[in-house]
Amino acid sequence: MNLEQMGQAARAAAYTLADTPTRAKNDALLAMAEALEASTAAILAANARDLDAARAAGINEAMLDRLMLNPARLKAIADDVRSVVRLPDPVGAELDSRVLENGMRLSRRRVPLGVVGVIYEARPNVTIDIAALCLKTGNASILRGGRETFHTNQELVKVIQQALAVSRLPAGCVQYIGEPGREWVSGLLRLDKYVDMIIPRGGPGLHQLCKEQSTIPVIIGGFGISHTFVDDSADLVRAIEVIDNAKTHRPSACNALDTLLVHRAVAAELLPRLSERMAAKGVELVADEEALALLQSGAAKVRPAAEGDFDTEWLSLTLGVKLVADVDEALAHLRDYNASHSDAILTNRLASAERFINGAPSAAVYVNASTRFTDGAQFGLGAEVAVSTQKLHARGPMGLEELTSYKWIGQADYLIRQ
Amino acid sequence: MNLEQMGQAARAAAYTLADTPTRAKNDALLAMAEALEASTAAILAANARDLDAARAAGINEAMLDRLMLNPARLKAIADDVRSVVRLPDPVGAELDSRVLENGMRLSRRRVPLGVVGVIYEARPNVTIDIAALCLKTGNASILRGGRETFHTNQELVKVIQQALAVSRLPAGCVQYIGEPGREWVSGLLRLDKYVDMIIPRGGPGLHQLCKEQSTIPVIIGGFGISHTFVDDSADLVRAIEVIDNAKTHRPSACNALDTLLVHRAVAAELLPRLSERMAAKGVELVADEEALALLQSGAAKVRPAAEGDFDTEWLSLTLGVKLVADVDEALAHLRDYNASHSDAILTNRLASAERFINGAPSAAVYVNASTRFTDGAQFGLGAEVAVSTQKLHARGPMGLEELTSYKWIGQADYLIRQ
Repeated sequence: MNLEQMGQAARAAAYTLADTPTRAKNDALLAMAEALEASTAAILAANARDLDAARAAGINEAMLDRLMLNPARLKAIADDVRSVVRLPDPVGAELDSRVLENGMRLSRRRVPLGVVGVIYEARPNVTIDIAALCLKTGNASILRGGRETFHTNQELVKVIQQALAVSRLPAGCVQYIGEPGREWVSGLLRLDKYVDMIIPRGGPGLHQLCKEQSTIPVIIGGFGISHTFVDDSADLVRAIEVIDNAKTHRPSACNALDTLLVHRAVAAELLPRLSERMAAKGVELVADEEALALLQSGAAKVRPAAEGDFDTEWLSLTLGVKLVADVDEALAHLRDYNASHSDAILTNRLASAERFINGAPSAAVYVNASTRFTDGAQFGLGAEVAVSTQKLHARGPMGLEELTSYKWIGQADYLIRQ
Repeated sequence: MNLEQMGQAARAAAYTLADTPTRAKNDALLAMAEALEASTAAILAANARDLDAARAAGINEAMLDRLMLNPARLKAIADDVRSVVRLPDPVGAELDSRVLENGMRLSRRRVPLGVVGVIYEARPNVTIDIAALCLKTGNASILRGGRETFHTNQELVKVIQQALAVSRLPAGCVQYIGEPGREWVSGLLRLDKYVDMIIPRGGPGLHQLCKEQSTIPVIIGGFGISHTFVDDSADLVRAIEVIDNAKTHRPSACNALDTLLVHRAVAAELLPRLSERMAAKGVELVADEEALALLQSGAAKVRPAAEGDFDTEWLSLTLGVKLVADVDEALAHLRDYNASHSDAILTNRLASAERFINGAPSAAVYVNASTRFTDGAQFGLGAEVAVSTQKLHARGPMGLEELTSYKWIGQADYLIRQ
């Protein structure tokens, strides 16, 4: 099939899905979970081929681990699908309803978006994850995975198609672009006649490509420098625990702490102790001139910050440190250095907390908490489609509701406009 | 100023506006309304220059009328600004708030989008209208009007700047790109570092340009073929009133009826009468083969539909007519012919109404009402920023809330993630 045909099939399937009751969608998801487990051998064999190819291409261990499936991981993926079954279906809810002066009952009803295009890299669990979330919300999906997981994805798509077939849902509900070649990505990004939203799940390069080329609305997200500002009123003993957690709990996560901003009045007290803790956790510090000497009195490895360091999302055991005069200077730093994801203030002063909440340009702003909480599961959304750092449609962790739109419904008695 | 500088100024102003209380924003709006009336002579003189240039360029009367300002129209524009003052400010509202199991209070708070870029044609009232709506919602705006209104807009922008100055708000709150040249439009569309949303207000060509070139999210809207389907259970006498209203109340509007779909079972009864009514209203009918003979028995001017007629948004006293077998065939027609704006069913049967509501791919779906109701004022939104036909962020008439985003706020007691 070419892209035009895939678009047509997706659009037709989306019309069917929009009118499919929750129970039928859930039955298809349960069938998918079962088929995943029943196909374990075939999926793992395909995955082994991908892993061999990746090793031959000299891909590093961290990446290999992301590609790798085993029975336990497959079981976890199937269980995730069963969790999606248990989530409430957002489609059909009435958002608001009122009677206008002219007697028309006007309401807004939640409906699926239609067709969602997803472009992603590496992790094969995304294939099942996104297919399941789209199916639950009545959206058709067109998936394009990375070439590193080509064989695995082929098997996963077979499983999805089996589940759709036994559930009598159209094959167009979930389609996969298996052909290599960037032109398929470019083509998908311009399929605005059929596709309502593009979700890129991958690095900044992929997001930039989508932003540049897409004629379809794109959800941009997953990046941004994360900051924590320690106010002069903060409890410094507990502040160190929060900083430690934000930096070292999972350094490769996009909500891990990148830059620590410290109120100058408490720097002499905080930084030597912080240096000890960071040394114990193997964190290297990258400090501005003022912070440098204070940190060097502790045991941590410290180097002076160079151009670009405060613009860096480390994704590793490195932490930028900078002194500021007050909350306003901290906010100015956030604005200058691309804060858009997760940022925190540690303070015991109400006015500082309010000022930071209002002034931070971030999708998620924390008072006295680790930045690591920005996550669909942590927020109780049940599922996470993506983490948006743009301001339209959805911001921060996106759950099922963010895969829907609404339509206006006006009901009356042969009403004409005066 | 170049675009980069304008973007920086807008971003800085947006930070100020995000923290400006409602009363200060309202004071600036009232100052704007007063300055508009005080500057009537200068604005009308500038408008006269634009009208002279337009006449010299041979622009038609309808377009000249759209360009033209007079004291009454200026007064109306100033009064519209005063109406915006009276609307509730959506910024700051808490959308939801709950305490997570770990003790964190998590809420979402409504915030301005930031910087809104607006590209528009002709009507000079858009300059004031959009500037006022953006200011009310705490957004900075960068405006680019059409060259037909160059002089008028220069004066209007002076008025806006006066109002900002007396209200001690930054000049960057509302900026206007006065320079000619398409490169300024292209540049604005790629200013994603500073601009959060693009709203095109103009014809399909402008929307297509924005969709193609913008790296910033664009609100697409204002077009789409509007349909009305007359079911076999409809009250035909009252149906004719609704069809007449939808077609002739304001034929140039985007929610005016384009194509009438008629259930075959009632065509012989409805169409001759419809033909009489349309003849009386000067509407030309464009009919498929089956409808043609039935319509020709009435007095209306009728021609057979040709390729593309059912794809045409008439914006004039022309109406397409086609017979269908049932509500499903009507829905299939809607899907094939770009229904995305406003569509109606006229029926007395509940099941047909529900089927049409669920199946129509439109932003606004009506049961027994004229399609002419799709409008911010009719819907009671207080103001209309645009009518979106896309499904992300906003669909249908957009009010003040659709000029906002939200941020997540997590408050806790030095909480770390387990």
